[in-house]
Amino acid sequence: MAKAGERVYMDHISAMPVDPRVVDFARPYLEQGHGNPSSLHRVGQAAKGAIQEARQRVADLINAESADTIIFTGGATEANNLAIRGTASRNARKGKRVVSSAIEHMSVLNPMKELQKGGFEYERAGVDEHGLVDLDELGRLVTKETTVTSLMYANNEIGTLQPIGEVADIVHEQGHFLHVDGTAAAGRVPIDVQAENIDLLTLSSNDLYGPQGVGALYIRPRLRLQTVMPGGGQERGFRSGTENLFGIAAMGEAARLASAEMESESQRLKGLRDELISGILKMDETYLTGHPERRLPHHASFRFAYIEGESLLMNMDMYDIQVTTGSACSSKTLEPSHVLLAIGLSHEQAHGSMILSLGHSNTEDQVPRVVKATGESLERLRALSPLYNPRPDDPSKRTE
Amino acid sequence: MAKAGERVYMDHISAMPVDPRVVDFARPYLEQGHGNPSSLHRVGQAAKGAIQEARQRVADLINAESADTIIFTGGATEANNLAIRGTASRNARKGKRVVSSAIEHMSVLNPMKELQKGGFEYERAGVDEHGLVDLDELGRLVTKETTVTSLMYANNEIGTLQPIGEVADIVHEQGHFLHVDGTAAAGRVPIDVQAENIDLLTLSSNDLYGPQGVGALYIRPRLRLQTVMPGGGQERGFRSGTENLFGIAAMGEAARLASAEMESESQRLKGLRDELISGILKMDETYLTGHPERRLPHHASFRFAYIEGESLLMNMDMYDIQVTTGSACSSKTLEPSHVLLAIGLSHEQAHGSMILSLGHSNTEDQVPRVVKATGESLERLRALSPLYNPRPDDPSKRTE
Repeated sequence: MAKAGERVYMDHISAMPVDPRVVDFARPYLEQGHGNPSSLHRVGQAAKGAIQEARQRVADLINAESADTIIFTGGATEANNLAIRGTASRNARKGKRVVSSAIEHMSVLNPMKELQKGGFEYERAGVDEHGLVDLDELGRLVTKETTVTSLMYANNEIGTLQPIGEVADIVHEQGHFLHVDGTAAAGRVPIDVQAENIDLLTLSSNDLYGPQGVGALYIRPRLRLQTVMPGGGQERGFRSGTENLFGIAAMGEAARLASAEMESESQRLKGLRDELISGILKMDETYLTGHPERRLPHHASFRFAYIEGESLLMNMDMYDIQVTTGSACSSKTLEPSHVLLAIGLSHEQAHGSMILSLGHSNTEDQVPRVVKATGESLERLRALSPLYNPRPDDPSKRTE
Repeated sequence: MAKAGERVYMDHISAMPVDPRVVDFARPYLEQGHGNPSSLHRVGQAAKGAIQEARQRVADLINAESADTIIFTGGATEANNLAIRGTASRNARKGKRVVSSAIEHMSVLNPMKELQKGGFEYERAGVDEHGLVDLDELGRLVTKETTVTSLMYANNEIGTLQPIGEVADIVHEQGHFLHVDGTAAAGRVPIDVQAENIDLLTLSSNDLYGPQGVGALYIRPRLRLQTVMPGGGQERGFRSGTENLFGIAAMGEAARLASAEMESESQRLKGLRDELISGILKMDETYLTGHPERRLPHHASFRFAYIEGESLLMNMDMYDIQVTTGSACSSKTLEPSHVLLAIGLSHEQAHGSMILSLGHSNTEDQVPRVVKATGESLERLRALSPLYNPRPDDPSKRTE
């Protein structure tokens, strides 16, 4: 049983602790194996070997054709930039049109907008109230001039898993290349780039319990794209810069552990997650956001009427329970989440959100503590709300 | 006295081991302090505080105005890209002309060439036989349309230190912004961005004994530039992507150690370096490349007649002594170094180069071992050379 004051970290969607096994595996590459993989002497060649092994481990996690389909980058944002801007620029003669859904991460939406400034057409397909992309609309938007269609495998804010196989069929029938941002999904659910017909897939090390500052892009064999980072020509010319040996080795080990442990760990976390959902949905005017079934197994997202998400986050933090409201990137701004607006919530509703995202450190005994803290926080905050005034005899009769 | 078989790593210009003190300092940020600095809860805020402290430490190393002038990137290559492409794009209404020297790193030359493809004029100033930039030519090339002039503080291949103060005067009198690639120089020689009038300065973590995969760009207050990495808007919008907490904290500690220890350590390494130079220059037909005095204190570079640098590197590696020939990036190609060609060497001469770059692990007793191994390797390789046939009675009479 966890002690009452013990930290409960349930914000794995924003940042994950690095698995100590990953640190132990990769630490020698910081100190002894400190070569530059481009160096020809034995220290450099050892570094090169370590990187090639990491490439294979990442390839195995997503059933890629070979290690050489994997390019390491400085993170998922850079991988998204390379996939979208690199592919669109290199293939502009095929057409100057790109498409995404309305609920992509900023590191997809903003590179797309950059292309738009550069003369590309950019269209976004809407989603339903559960966050599933509208396949009919996508079918209308993807044309033979559409070089890149980008869709996330799973949404980080609402957990919804997209029907990637069906999306791939539409994209390949009518357009050219499908980029999938797999950041939130990889290591949680199986991804198979060959079976699912994915041309480009973004992965983040940290989302696999590896260190921050390293990511990878799967590039289907023979797909041509232009670098977004000109320089010394590392990573087959796709990404210049001396390789982050420690980070890459660590990401490789993290991918290996994810391949081995994903199934059982996701099952375990899904159990805890379902208990959290059923406990929290019992509370007054609380709603699950995202899809009830087709969602990430470690992910629960809610909206609460008469609640400001940021105040809720702060209240939970007083119990030493870390959660988030919306994406970490948007928490700096006062804008409501574009994802919650896209699934049809009003600005006011969108502000009352909370995401619980679970990981290795979370245990069964933490569930009642989180449910209790949520209930108490909601009560405290609603007591301050001028809009929430339940009559004691009829708490359900309120207008939102 | 070092054991005969002990590794002698003298390739610090390609990759540096991470200082164990840096690893110890930063390791907690991998595991416990695993927040996302954009998160509002206490874990995220602790991460934000750690990053701000690292920013201050990097600022202190180069006497920057404040912590906020420092932007963390995925490495020096990305910092060079951001400085050059970001500044040129954002300030294109001031003019579409950029200038560098002929001996810049690929991560400067290639972003400049990208701008050239996009319609910018790009000119390169030559250097003298020691690698010092031709200030007269630079004065002619920098015009009032020149938004970015980029010059490295010290050259990684030949060690030459540029007269940055004089360059800054020319750039600011006639053009706009001076970017300095300080990768090889920072931590070896003092850099003062305010006194030297530098507008943008690139730093690499690994060249300060920090981990690979993280770098920084100093941006003078009020200088405007455009991001090259659109996304979530981290690093004041200049560089999107979740911050590499471990890498940034480590780079901060590496910068702090460099500030404290640079003077004494550079003095110590200069002593060893000078012994290496005097030992090696006694050998037949060996020449120092780069400037004899105005050079990095830990850096010695040579060319040897009748020698192929790659074979020399392999021979030294058999003694377990790691050195490099040319830059790590170019070692993959068979092209001679553009730096050695620019200082006036022929293709053949440029191929016979070796760089010794020293660091913490190098000690007095390693010097005679390296000198001896160099001498033996030269002898062995020249014995195989059809061009090198000394008559036993007159070894000095040979035509190159």
